[in-house]
Amino acid sequence: MSNSADRDDVLGRARVRDTAELEAYYDDLAGFETGALWTVANDIEPWEPTPKSAPVLWRNADLRAQVLRAIDLVRPEDAGRRVVYLRNPKRREVSAACGWLFSGIQVMKAGERAGAHKHAASALRFIMEGQGAYTIVDGHKVELGARDFVLTPNGTWHEHGISEDGTTCMWQDGLDIPLTNALEANFYAVHPDDYQVTNLPANDSPMTYGGPGLRPAMDKWDKPYSPLLCYRWEPTYEALQNYAKVTDGSPFDGVKMDYVNPVTGGDPMLTMGASMQLLRPGEHTRAHRHTGNVIYQVAKGEGYSIVGGQRFDWKERDIFCVPPWVWHEHCNTQTGDDACLFSFNDFPVMKKLGFYAEQALEDNNGHQILIT
Amino acid sequence: MSNSADRDDVLGRARVRDTAELEAYYDDLAGFETGALWTVANDIEPWEPTPKSAPVLWRNADLRAQVLRAIDLVRPEDAGRRVVYLRNPKRREVSAACGWLFSGIQVMKAGERAGAHKHAASALRFIMEGQGAYTIVDGHKVELGARDFVLTPNGTWHEHGISEDGTTCMWQDGLDIPLTNALEANFYAVHPDDYQVTNLPANDSPMTYGGPGLRPAMDKWDKPYSPLLCYRWEPTYEALQNYAKVTDGSPFDGVKMDYVNPVTGGDPMLTMGASMQLLRPGEHTRAHRHTGNVIYQVAKGEGYSIVGGQRFDWKERDIFCVPPWVWHEHCNTQTGDDACLFSFNDFPVMKKLGFYAEQALEDNNGHQILIT
Amino acid sequence: MSNSADRDDVLGRARVRDTAELEAYYDDLAGFETGALWTVANDIEPWEPTPKSAPVLWRNADLRAQVLRAIDLVRPEDAGRRVVYLRNPKRREVSAACGWLFSGIQVMKAGERAGAHKHAASALRFIMEGQGAYTIVDGHKVELGARDFVLTPNGTWHEHGISEDGTTCMWQDGLDIPLTNALEANFYAVHPDDYQVTNLPANDSPMTYGGPGLRPAMDKWDKPYSPLLCYRWEPTYEALQNYAKVTDGSPFDGVKMDYVNPVTGGDPMLTMGASMQLLRPGEHTRAHRHTGNVIYQVAKGEGYSIVGGQRFDWKERDIFCVPPWVWHEHCNTQTGDDACLFSFNDFPVMKKLGFYAEQALEDNNGHQILIT
Amino acid sequence: MSNSADRDDVLGRARVRDTAELEAYYDDLAGFETGALWTVANDIEPWEPTPKSAPVLWRNADLRAQVLRAIDLVRPEDAGRRVVYLRNPKRREVSAACGWLFSGIQVMKAGERAGAHKHAASALRFIMEGQGAYTIVDGHKVELGARDFVLTPNGTWHEHGISEDGTTCMWQDGLDIPLTNALEANFYAVHPDDYQVTNLPANDSPMTYGGPGLRPAMDKWDKPYSPLLCYRWEPTYEALQNYAKVTDGSPFDGVKMDYVNPVTGGDPMLTMGASMQLLRPGEHTRAHRHTGNVIYQVAKGEGYSIVGGQRFDWKERDIFCVPPWVWHEHCNTQTGDDACLFSFNDFPVMKKLGFYAEQALEDNNGHQILIT
Ligand SMILES: [Fe+2]
Ligand SMILES: [Fe+2]
Ligand SMILES: [Fe+2]
Ligand SMILES: [Fe+2]
Ligand SMILES: [Fe+2]
Ligand SMILES: [Fe+2]
Ligand SMILES: [Fe+2]
Ligand SMILES: [Fe+2]
Repeated sequence: MSNSADRDDVLGRARVRDTAELEAYYDDLAGFETGALWTVANDIEPWEPTPKSAPVLWRNADLRAQVLRAIDLVRPEDAGRRVVYLRNPKRREVSAACGWLFSGIQVMKAGERAGAHKHAASALRFIMEGQGAYTIVDGHKVELGARDFVLTPNGTWHEHGISEDGTTCMWQDGLDIPLTNALEANFYAVHPDDYQVTNLPANDSPMTYGGPGLRPAMDKWDKPYSPLLCYRWEPTYEALQNYAKVTDGSPFDGVKMDYVNPVTGGDPMLTMGASMQLLRPGEHTRAHRHTGNVIYQVAKGEGYSIVGGQRFDWKERDIFCVPPWVWHEHCNTQTGDDACLFSFNDFPVMKKLGFYAEQALEDNNGHQILIT
Repeated sequence: MSNSADRDDVLGRARVRDTAELEAYYDDLAGFETGALWTVANDIEPWEPTPKSAPVLWRNADLRAQVLRAIDLVRPEDAGRRVVYLRNPKRREVSAACGWLFSGIQVMKAGERAGAHKHAASALRFIMEGQGAYTIVDGHKVELGARDFVLTPNGTWHEHGISEDGTTCMWQDGLDIPLTNALEANFYAVHPDDYQVTNLPANDSPMTYGGPGLRPAMDKWDKPYSPLLCYRWEPTYEALQNYAKVTDGSPFDGVKMDYVNPVTGGDPMLTMGASMQLLRPGEHTRAHRHTGNVIYQVAKGEGYSIVGGQRFDWKERDIFCVPPWVWHEHCNTQTGDDACLFSFNDFPVMKKLGFYAEQALEDNNGHQILIT
Repeated sequence: MSNSADRDDVLGRARVRDTAELEAYYDDLAGFETGALWTVANDIEPWEPTPKSAPVLWRNADLRAQVLRAIDLVRPEDAGRRVVYLRNPKRREVSAACGWLFSGIQVMKAGERAGAHKHAASALRFIMEGQGAYTIVDGHKVELGARDFVLTPNGTWHEHGISEDGTTCMWQDGLDIPLTNALEANFYAVHPDDYQVTNLPANDSPMTYGGPGLRPAMDKWDKPYSPLLCYRWEPTYEALQNYAKVTDGSPFDGVKMDYVNPVTGGDPMLTMGASMQLLRPGEHTRAHRHTGNVIYQVAKGEGYSIVGGQRFDWKERDIFCVPPWVWHEHCNTQTGDDACLFSFNDFPVMKKLGFYAEQALEDNNGHQILIT
Repeated sequence: MSNSADRDDVLGRARVRDTAELEAYYDDLAGFETGALWTVANDIEPWEPTPKSAPVLWRNADLRAQVLRAIDLVRPEDAGRRVVYLRNPKRREVSAACGWLFSGIQVMKAGERAGAHKHAASALRFIMEGQGAYTIVDGHKVELGARDFVLTPNGTWHEHGISEDGTTCMWQDGLDIPLTNALEANFYAVHPDDYQVTNLPANDSPMTYGGPGLRPAMDKWDKPYSPLLCYRWEPTYEALQNYAKVTDGSPFDGVKMDYVNPVTGGDPMLTMGASMQLLRPGEHTRAHRHTGNVIYQVAKGEGYSIVGGQRFDWKERDIFCVPPWVWHEHCNTQTGDDACLFSFNDFPVMKKLGFYAEQALEDNNGHQILIT
């Protein structure tokens, strides 16, 4: 009897031993599209979650060249979106990077434009490189710079492009497509005119909603996502630096800010959150674990993270994931500069449904033992 | 080229044709735990949801005898819970009755008692027959009668039993266990004392919170679920009859009331809702479809439902399910009496995440053509 | 120097002594529509509130005959409403019964009908006697019985009447008119057709929203007040009796329930709340005080209340008020029956603005010393 | 019969003519602390609000010298606060600047410090001139510069001072003291240690909460007011300029932003809101009126406002008020520069209680006729 079976040999767990009579009963039940709960109870009511995704590091050094190859291989008009997606080895069947989150790297070159569509899934982007990229969301055009964080919320018409005088641009996409599919709720439509026509001034969203502690007095925003569609890198990094001067930060995350909907102070979109965190020179956080999936991109600096006992060394534009209920800790190995990690997650799902749980590692002074 | 492939041959969809060069590229991508989005895009971004569960009718006439057999085959102390669960033929791998919802029929006899435990999954019950059943939720004991609707919310200690002078009792269980597992958020614990000890008066929950339009002035309830743990049949049926006198009802559902948390007016639990609906004598509703899973139990009367073009004839205590985005309509075939359908669903999940969608059938005067 | 002046002779209070130079300065300031804060600071920033209203008991034995006299003296068509209002001796200039709350007793006889109007002020009624009364609120007609609690929320068209086969009816009105005027926000309009025309079935509001723990599934109610316009006495009293079986109640209020908006669980209207409380045979509560004004009507039984050290003996249909921050306690002097107090208040105002405060009397075992 | 009396001679208004019999009745009613509603009904239910405050302009040119005189006349330790308050000629009895809002100008010189206290009333400040001012709110010290907007919310310990190397500083105070007193809810306490002792880094509040679209991930803020205690002028003015590039603005207010609690997107405090609005060169807005009181301070530029038909010419640091339901329009008379108006108001009170109403002037192309 295994260790787990031992633990299950208590009142309140299923511990029925099979008999011939029971086997016959089970056969009869199957004939009525039913089963005996006690034959599956301990499996479907585990003591705690066990990870269904692998921790993975995707190195920009590896991926960048592969992504660039796609430019000559497919056109956006044929591909829909020219994206190399991150395929978690344990989530291949749902095309997910981690859990129910999709992620990929999109590349476009100057003058290219991908048609407008909409879907029930929500999307976000984190800009990696290039000049001249823009996205248009329900008629609001936003010009994008490196390390900007951008929203294309569920149900909005959206399209991307690069201006004629721009350069080849790359960004990371994050979507809840696997979740939307799992919940059988995905809908898709292409724009009737292929592309949106708009008279709104460019960047009207960040220029209207990007002020601190302010809200346009005429504002009637009532959609379930943020009207601030683009969170610029510069004020974000400045805010982190200011905050770092007056806080010790979190033992698990260093100096961390969540991107929020300025109209509510809550999540920017219904199903996904995002954060930027700063690790001070040499800072090595303590390990914790929680439910929910997190996908990181290194925005600045270098260091490593230990995820599930495995060390992943990272530098700028590397991407890695932390599956649910897996211990993780972060280290900025630089002695003279801070490191910044962008991340997005499905915490809004976990929190709205009452499924968010968190635990600090007590042993070994809060640090994991590396698996060798 | 299939019909669906035709529809996908438009700007905004993936329509890249495989070439040897691309195949080589795909191989290279796989080596980096990546893939080309356009090879899966149309699959993971479908035009609309396609059902992953089958519509199923479970007849009480079939199930009752099978469930009763379990009394002699297993003891609650060994089974954890003596439950025959409903296994959707297309959801066997997750032990679900429909989508991400679990359901089963539990049976206990006089004097039996099942130990206390708790879990991150939420549970509800709808009482089918018998006298003397009770449940204890975080120390609050509730005595249960036929057609009462009962909550055991996420994270609460709970246990069930039948009083010594009771009779064999049966009820339907509904849980979000498959969802909780899919989201990797299930936790389980058995009570340290096996059973709860409580000094609270029996039925304190319905006697405190069961008044209409009233709230105890001292109330400080701040948990994310209803303090009203049991919704009795008699006032529910009376409310439906009153409401029926002043409403035409819904074209799709007849006279329908949702069970709500009286402290907020919202969902009784974070992940599941429940309703009771009344169909007038001879009423045949029009068809609609929506996202979210619904599992029905016939509380009163007889009739049929057409689900996805299939007719399912039902009578009291029969159970059937309606998967997401499948057309459905209901008919009370009795000419002299109303019929009542209890149902529970995962609409709270769909609505909180922005995934709820609904559509009325326009063709054929709102009625489905039966599949023959 | 008075006791209060002593207490003010500390750092943080104004304690500037007048001089000739200062007097000249004050004169100059007055010329610019200004003043020196320190000359009024201690007055406008008191240590705690001092009551501006007197505690008053209005006996039904006194008032009933006076109110009936009005039937022959004025017609509703000329009076607007045939109401004798309760005039607090210390609030005559604002026609208030207590603080910023208006209250009066309205009387109508069989077949009378008062025209429809609307106003920014909110109104409520508590029915005292008679058969056949009705009110129509935005087209929803409600038939009224003794001890029913009824809403006519801010901005709704409303009118009252007595059916031809009814009897002379009396009810207590409660309104926030003085508050609305103080805040310079009162608007008034008479109905363009004098009376509302409606095809809605009578009592559709309580028949739709009067079920416990239920909400019509089609409901789209989004107004800032309760769709349940009438809270019947019978289920209210039954709920209190049930609750009394499982609670010790409040030391200050006995067994008390607040009337709530069933769609939100919150206040029935934006500015006024209401409650029904039950005092067990012989129950004498402990004294407390709080901000906010409360006006009581005795719904059942007899007893007394001590308010600000004064004893007020009451029986059915007597009305009394408790001004802000005045100690009060209640006593049911009956040994064989419970007593019930209906009350309404402006707690929603106090709570929304952060002004609610409460204190228990510690001295003398929680009981006031009577002022002799 | 007056015009107003004419208007009241309709069904739905009181139009009872006095008779000897009625006079006798009124005398009897008075003996029972009651009255006949119809004798006061039209007064207490007016067709619309009539202003209880006068529009007033307080010129900095007048006030500054008077305020400075106070430095030599009183010490903060004796005055509590060295403030010259603005006394509306029609609100002298409640020491209000407009409606239920208090305002005054406070002055302190280098090295002065006023003791810590707290009260149920909320306070805000708008800095007019000087260097080295600071305020400490519940231990959070904020250093203040010209045109910063600062909060000292209800119930917080607060104190002000000027650093030893600072200069004489002046700021406008705004409080809801008259409202708090009218609602009989004011409480006051002096700090047990006279001054607060704190180890928190200076400006931790704006450095933590002053970033745009961001929220500290560790934040557990749950108080009913903003954790951002100081809104700096520079980012506010920058936000207005950005917003001006992408909006036409409001016809009544130009380009206007409300200061908000970044954690909720709502009002910064429970009872008072505040805004900064920019009028483009030469912009003359259209007139509107609304309930609620507004007190303005000119933050930048010059121009005039027409309030209730009276023209008030203003320049920097002038203060003026707009009483409820009085028409008002604003004009920037400068041709080469924008003008900015800071204002605070009691709109949160009006909106929470359902009393906010607004109307655009239709006549004369939206402009008032000056009263001559
Ligand atoms: Fe998309
Ligand atoms: Fe983490
Ligand atoms: Fe369970
Ligand atoms: Fe349905
Ligand atoms: Fe009225
Ligand atoms: Fe009280
Ligand atoms: Fe103060
Ligand atoms: Fe205005």
